[in-house]
Order: sequence, then structure tokens, then C-alpha cells
Amino acid sequence: MRIGIVAPSCPIDDDVADGVTARAAALYGADAPALIFHPQCWLVDGHFAGNDATRLSALVEMANDPAIDAIWFARGGYGAGRIAADALPLLNDAARAKTWIGYSDAGVVLAALYAKGIGTVAHGPMPADIRREDGGAAVDRALRWLVERAPDTAEPHAPAAAFNLTILSHIIGTPLQPDLAGHVLMLEDVAEYHYRIDRALGHVTSNPGIRQVAGIRMGRFSDIPENDRPFGMEVETMVRHWCRVSGIPFLGTADIGHDAANMIVPFG
Amino acid sequence: MRIGIVAPSCPIDDDVADGVTARAAALYGADAPALIFHPQCWLVDGHFAGNDATRLSALVEMANDPAIDAIWFARGGYGAGRIAADALPLLNDAARAKTWIGYSDAGVVLAALYAKGIGTVAHGPMPADIRREDGGAAVDRALRWLVERAPDTAEPHAPAAAFNLTILSHIIGTPLQPDLAGHVLMLEDVAEYHYRIDRALGHVTSNPGIRQVAGIRMGRFSDIPENDRPFGMEVETMVRHWCRVSGIPFLGTADIGHDAANMIVPFG
Repeated sequence: MRIGIVAPSCPIDDDVADGVTARAAALYGADAPALIFHPQCWLVDGHFAGNDATRLSALVEMANDPAIDAIWFARGGYGAGRIAADALPLLNDAARAKTWIGYSDAGVVLAALYAKGIGTVAHGPMPADIRREDGGAAVDRALRWLVERAPDTAEPHAPAAAFNLTILSHIIGTPLQPDLAGHVLMLEDVAEYHYRIDRALGHVTSNPGIRQVAGIRMGRFSDIPENDRPFGMEVETMVRHWCRVSGIPFLGTADIGHDAANMIVPFG
Repeated sequence: MRIGIVAPSCPIDDDVADGVTARAAALYGADAPALIFHPQCWLVDGHFAGNDATRLSALVEMANDPAIDAIWFARGGYGAGRIAADALPLLNDAARAKTWIGYSDAGVVLAALYAKGIGTVAHGPMPADIRREDGGAAVDRALRWLVERAPDTAEPHAPAAAFNLTILSHIIGTPLQPDLAGHVLMLEDVAEYHYRIDRALGHVTSNPGIRQVAGIRMGRFSDIPENDRPFGMEVETMVRHWCRVSGIPFLGTADIGHDAANMIVPFG
């Protein structure tokens, strides 16, 4: 198996490729998948892993290569939304046959692919997660799902989709918004103030398309900063509030988040 | 003239009412408009100026009072989005005859009213702006527009609408999104990272409805925090980028922002 790694958002650190390759070797020995890190992963252009044209070209090059079986997004940050819409019309049949996995800002590309019915799409850990505490376990989980679809790596609810709440909020009402009717929608976020989480929940659940989901599961909302005034509500209270207002069933928790325990959520 | 002041988002400080009332007296003497601050403006419930039911009830009570000519939103923050949709069906003919003015988070209510064709709606300074440096000038500008529609208080482009970019982003794809076809859309923001400004610009300009605007004018984007990596692009470059991508004409700057110079932008 050959896994192509590109960075549609921000660059990765130097040691990520070696670390992830070592995890694959430890898991699978001589049968380890080939991990092909596109050199674009290390480019730096301001905030981004190369400028828009460079990131787009690396993504399309790897996606359209029939010798590569899966696209693994290297990390999140910000930038995927600047190239996702442009990438779609450039993808060929090889891209449509691929598995695509990532989360956080990479969710923009996953949304766009899923909206257009391109490939097999999944929320899950990325190579850069190896730098987290216990990040090796996150990388192993993604590899074991990519290589053998190991059942213990995935959230069992289906059909499903998973998003970073803030990322999903910025896709609402655009051509990149996928039809999630009947899906279990799992949401997580990191480093957002309570008021921003509440605002984004209100936004997402007010969209008529999102109101067609089967229900919402609450992933982890981590590293919430302290505000100058206490918000006065926990995240679950907000999720339950907006589910009630929108008529969307609240289905409990989901084992996803910006952490090493983040599970795979295959879309669909 | 009687102006009713309510706070759909966060509470105001104790001295705002006296300060604003003194400005009105200095401007108009015995002819000064009556400024009726609803006591709800000073309630505190976590982040909010009273809980949702209390803020909604204060808003509807003042809006539906035929003895009040205009609703002046007291300040922004966060919270208007929790009550705007519920308020709409409760508004009577007196509410429809009113002028409504505010900005920032109050833009959610302005958007909702404008989407439903309720009242005369304008972006402009709020009572809490009196606490800004030179904030008296901002308050005077709003009063002079409310009382006499003084032409020097308003941005001359019409038809127009003005929003805080982040607030508009959170209305996109919801029933509160107004039809802005043919409008000059003015956008401003405060205290958002470059990457968030870029992300919200991409979001807003990707919406098919927004792509019908006559063009975008760039207000002030102030107090942009330093990020852990430099973004590598100024705001005008981003606005021009997304205008080019979306086919929306870039029309230059607009004299609006989170500051004392913030001009009135009557919607329509």
C-alpha cells in the first residue's frame, strides 16, 4: 500500500516523517505501507505550507497518481479552504478511487470531496499528531484503519460524518457543504472560547441542511480559553440547547477531538 | 422622539446611560430625545445581559411599544443570535414602523429584521461606544442620525448593508441571512487573527447569495492579534483575493469599524 501525504494547510515539523515512518515499520515490518511525504509538506509561505498554487498542485498531483492508494493530510491549521474548491474539478478517476483521511482544517477538503461523492472520506488522526502526548497511538490508529480497516479504530455509528465545529461553520451555505441528511454528525473543537462554541453551534444547527441530520454527538471541546467574563454554561448544555432549538436529536458523546484518542469516523 | 435602548447581547456599564443622556442634552437641549434604557441592559447572567427569555422579552416589549420611535442596541458582545429568530414572529406593527440601529453582535438582529423587511435598519454606533476614546463623537453621530438623519453621519453608498465580518459569517446559510443582491456590502472586524479574517472572507464570499452583492467595501479591521506565525498577507490583499475568486467587485474602503469614527450605514 502506498499512502501519499500532502499539507493543504500549514507545514509540518522536520521530524514528523521519520517518526510516522518508524511507527508504520513497528506495526507492519516489511509489510509496512510506503509513506510518501510530498516535499510541499515542509514549504513555508507565511502561514501556509507553500502558496495556494503550490499546495493545490501538490494535492492534485498526489490525488491523481494511480500508484497511490490513499491521501493522508499531514496536519491542520488554516489554508485548505483556499484551495478546496479549485481542486475538485481537477481530480481524475484515480483520485475518485482513493481513501482520504484527516481532520481539523483538512475537514474542508473532506467536506468538499464528500459533497461531490469523490473517494472514501474519513475523519481521523494525521501525521502531525505524532507530536502530541501519546501521539504514536493516534498515528497507529490511522495506519491500522488505512491498511486493514481495523474495527477498533473507528466510531461505530453510521452513517456518520465528523467535523471540527468551527471548520464546519465556515462551510455552511457554500457549495462545499455536503448533504448530511440522515447522518450522525459528530462535532469537536479546540481552543475556542465558550461564546464562540455557542455561536458556531447556533450557526450550524440553524442551517436547513444540517437540520436533516439524524442527530449530533458531542466530541471533545478542549483547551477552552478563559474569557474576561465567565460564560455560565458548559459545552454540553450548549449542544443540548441548540439541539432542542433546532429539533436535532442529541445522541450523546463521540470519541473524537484534538487529542491522541481521536477516533476514525468514516463518512457515510 | 423616544428612543428605547435594549441589550440583546452583553450588559452595559453603570455610567453609560448618564453619559449618553448628557450627550443628547448637549446636542439638543430641551428638544433632546427621551432615552429610555430598559433595566435589562444592566442584568448579568453569565456572559449575557440576562438570560435568553429576559433579553427576548425586553427586546419585544420595547419593539412593540407604539410610544417608542426607535430601538438603539446598547452594545455588542455575544448573545443576539440566541434570541433573534424567536423575536421575529413576536413583532407587531409598531415594531415594523421603527428605526433600529446598532452593529457588531447586534448585526444578527439587524440581519434578521432586514431579511424579513421589518423596520428601518442601520449599522451605527451604540451607547456603549461612549466609553471608547472620543466615544462621545460616536454617540453624537448616532443621535444626529436618529433625530435628524444628518447627512454627514452616513456612508453615502446605497443601496448598502454593513456587517461585522465574523457576525455575517455566522448568519450565512441560515434563515436570518438577508437578500443583499445589488447592495454595497461593507465589512469590518475587530480582534480577529489574520487567518480568521481570511477564513471568514472565504466563507462569506463563497455563498451564492452574497455573490449577488454589487461589491464589497473594506471597513477597518482593528486590533488584529499577533499569531504564532506571521500570516504573510494584509487584510486588503485578502479582501481583493476573495473578491477576485468570487467575482465580487472590490469597491475600496468604508468608514466603519469598532471605533469612534464608525459611520452610519442605513440598510437598503
